[in-house]
Amino acid sequence: MRLVPTTLAAAVLAFTLGAVQAAPQTDVQTKGVPTKGVLTKIAQTSVDNATQLRERALADDTAYEVVESLTTEVGPRMAGSEGDARAVAWAVAKFKSLGYDKVWTEPVTFPKWERKSESAEVLGDHSQKLTLTALGGSPGGTVEGEVVRFASLKDLADAPAGSLKGKIAFIDFTMERAKDGSGYGMGSQIRGGGPSAAIRAGASAYLMRSAGTDSHRNPHTGITHFDDGLNPIPSAALAAPDAAQLSRLVALGKPVRVKLALDCGWTGTYTSQNVIGEMRGRSKPDEVVVIGGHLDSWDLGTGAIDDGAGVAIAMGAGKLIGDMKQRPARTIRVVAFSNEEQGLYGGRAYAQQHMGDIRKHQIGAESDFGAGRIYAFSTGAPERALGAVKQIADVLAPLGIEYTPGQGGPGPDISPFAANGLAWGALRQDGTDYFDYHHTPDDTLDKIDPKALAQNVAAYAVFAYLAADADGDFGSERKQVTPPRE
Amino acid sequence: MRLVPTTLAAAVLAFTLGAVQAAPQTDVQTKGVPTKGVLTKIAQTSVDNATQLRERALADDTAYEVVESLTTEVGPRMAGSEGDARAVAWAVAKFKSLGYDKVWTEPVTFPKWERKSESAEVLGDHSQKLTLTALGGSPGGTVEGEVVRFASLKDLADAPAGSLKGKIAFIDFTMERAKDGSGYGMGSQIRGGGPSAAIRAGASAYLMRSAGTDSHRNPHTGITHFDDGLNPIPSAALAAPDAAQLSRLVALGKPVRVKLALDCGWTGTYTSQNVIGEMRGRSKPDEVVVIGGHLDSWDLGTGAIDDGAGVAIAMGAGKLIGDMKQRPARTIRVVAFSNEEQGLYGGRAYAQQHMGDIRKHQIGAESDFGAGRIYAFSTGAPERALGAVKQIADVLAPLGIEYTPGQGGPGPDISPFAANGLAWGALRQDGTDYFDYHHTPDDTLDKIDPKALAQNVAAYAVFAYLAADADGDFGSERKQVTPPRE
Repeated sequence: MRLVPTTLAAAVLAFTLGAVQAAPQTDVQTKGVPTKGVLTKIAQTSVDNATQLRERALADDTAYEVVESLTTEVGPRMAGSEGDARAVAWAVAKFKSLGYDKVWTEPVTFPKWERKSESAEVLGDHSQKLTLTALGGSPGGTVEGEVVRFASLKDLADAPAGSLKGKIAFIDFTMERAKDGSGYGMGSQIRGGGPSAAIRAGASAYLMRSAGTDSHRNPHTGITHFDDGLNPIPSAALAAPDAAQLSRLVALGKPVRVKLALDCGWTGTYTSQNVIGEMRGRSKPDEVVVIGGHLDSWDLGTGAIDDGAGVAIAMGAGKLIGDMKQRPARTIRVVAFSNEEQGLYGGRAYAQQHMGDIRKHQIGAESDFGAGRIYAFSTGAPERALGAVKQIADVLAPLGIEYTPGQGGPGPDISPFAANGLAWGALRQDGTDYFDYHHTPDDTLDKIDPKALAQNVAAYAVFAYLAADADGDFGSERKQVTPPRE
Repeated sequence: MRLVPTTLAAAVLAFTLGAVQAAPQTDVQTKGVPTKGVLTKIAQTSVDNATQLRERALADDTAYEVVESLTTEVGPRMAGSEGDARAVAWAVAKFKSLGYDKVWTEPVTFPKWERKSESAEVLGDHSQKLTLTALGGSPGGTVEGEVVRFASLKDLADAPAGSLKGKIAFIDFTMERAKDGSGYGMGSQIRGGGPSAAIRAGASAYLMRSAGTDSHRNPHTGITHFDDGLNPIPSAALAAPDAAQLSRLVALGKPVRVKLALDCGWTGTYTSQNVIGEMRGRSKPDEVVVIGGHLDSWDLGTGAIDDGAGVAIAMGAGKLIGDMKQRPARTIRVVAFSNEEQGLYGGRAYAQQHMGDIRKHQIGAESDFGAGRIYAFSTGAPERALGAVKQIADVLAPLGIEYTPGQGGPGPDISPFAANGLAWGALRQDGTDYFDYHHTPDDTLDKIDPKALAQNVAAYAVFAYLAADADGDFGSERKQVTPPRE
């Protein structure tokens, strides 16, 4: 999980400009769309079927087996890496082995970034190694310089031009733990905006305390960017204990010199694939409910919570629906999105490819916030569909899921399409621990609780089934999108 | 903290043979030594002074400042490294700045082991990196081979000679979490004994799941050894998630090949120093109570809980006693022991150097089990001193410390001397989380709770003060030691 736009306007930005730094799962303004057309509703037999489906899902371990398979047999799968290619092949094979009716891929092309090595050390009287990782998009290079510490991005942005000439800018900001991940807003801003601010002040390199909530020697990577016209500098995130250590050394009052050596950078373009599997609908097979997760991960861990879990939840929910005696009216389409981490490339490619079919998309939802239990449900549906939404919410409620209209937003890979009119649902996960592991070497299978994962599958299965079997739609309709002025 | 002998017989072994693998803080048989001589007792004014001292210690942050200084300004300080030399200079300066009356060093010579680099990867269809660290004492080397998994040391020891020819032996055993650290018994046996068992079966390299209780990508190092006559092989510990991953790959049923590259090994000898500071006693300055911790750490972390905390607790307790209006009768001697981790070199050197003065040593205690709260107190004192021991226990009780006669044992660096007759006290710490961080990169300052550290200081201050001010002794007397047959 990289980012979730705060508002639909931000989602538009994400789609049109391709980069936004924002907090996950913050509220959107779900302005009531005037009711037109027939009311959307769900038959009682569908509700009964969904209730049984929910209970079956809670006892099913398909999703855990899927994420175990992906993280074990493929492991790390950074966009453009050899693991990316293996992940695509894995996903095609997994969809088939799970009995999906139709499996195909759609190309996604993006610039390729590679990480080869990274190290850093404090020089001088207090010499010691520091644990860090290059930010995605950083150039390589070896830099030696005095560290200048800032407590916030604003403080660095306020540093006069040229004031950091020959020095290393360091932001030591600790992001807050929150169930909804809201602390990541500032964390990701510091990751995305810090390097450019450092360059403007004349710095030779950029360091930050990892955007995370843990206290382990596992730094958090993640994409950064450099504003147009600036000359990129080596940029990296320190593990939390290392950031604290560096701040203590700076606080001793004498200049602290650090040597930083990153071997990484952009190396051309790569074409990967969105991998798609469908369980065909009973009576309206050309209309689809889209659920998914992203197939790529960062390279440091095995991408269990980000986002093997999301892929597994969607694949597992789709399989359970496919196995039903009576399928829903519409098709369940599961998408394993390509390269979310470096700029929503898979989600944007999907939206572009399928924009013409937007009205055939009943609704979409992506799971990309780990494997914690879902605690809240909402949609961006218009008033005429809110009765059906409430029916879905009622079947979700026994899972401990609250109906929270007006809160949440579409998952990252859904957001480009949602910004252009796709109806979306949000099944919000408890992310209290998510940023302990996110983008670190520690994102591994053992961080997933199988029971919590099954609860996720149950929720996605209920949501997808009922949406796919509803009479009427949830408001997908192409909007005229005007990029807001900056 | 490397090891604590299970019994005094094992302590003898540690002293005479220099290597023992055993659990920390397990019980010793405190056989009642026949009462002879006068009863040891403590005056009420001493008890009153100790009570005030205890409360002052709880409000004092000297120890936290000491461990912050050591871990920040020196950082990692593996025996024989440049950090070792800096740590010795730091300790001398710190004793002086804390106002110790006398500060000196005593040489400790040992073989030097160096770690330069280490890496491993799974080869073939499921290629991915594995996180591991060389065991202390491992030779370097690059090995590629099929992994053969064992669930226990016994299973590997039972493998027929030659059955692992050209292969990599892998023990995947998960040690148990326990307040008293008892799970480390098997964990350290697998680390110490696994490599030799692997060699006997013909293996080219040895891998183990780290002896730890965490689930992070931070492997646990620690000393291993190779039995005489065997040709050492590269030996390393995988982080827990990596061990689980490797086991899952093996469970897929096809041969799993791993490439392991360690650059490390023994490189001659090195002479470091035990660093000693004294607060002179009021009336019997040539008699001493010895408290301490070990100054060396492993190289991966900054040695906060192992054993910066121990050094800080002892230094902080000594300082508080030195600052008293009326000092105790005897001298408080604080020892920052050299190279505990690779074979109790500092503790053995101290015992050898001071054996002739054993009766001048009132009692000894070492803190080397982290920075968790002390929950239990005991000694190996003879019956005639048990009244005084109970008086000490009564002043400790408000700290949440239970008197548990017959349990516990001397700290590792005290154990060689204790095996030869030194009276010892045990202030047992809650080690529930200790093996989450022990010997990993994650052993950093943030893992220490300042309040828990202050409770430790209060306990050591009370213990040392009352023992130093008692009328009578706690049984230090040279024993004739006969090494047990193997």
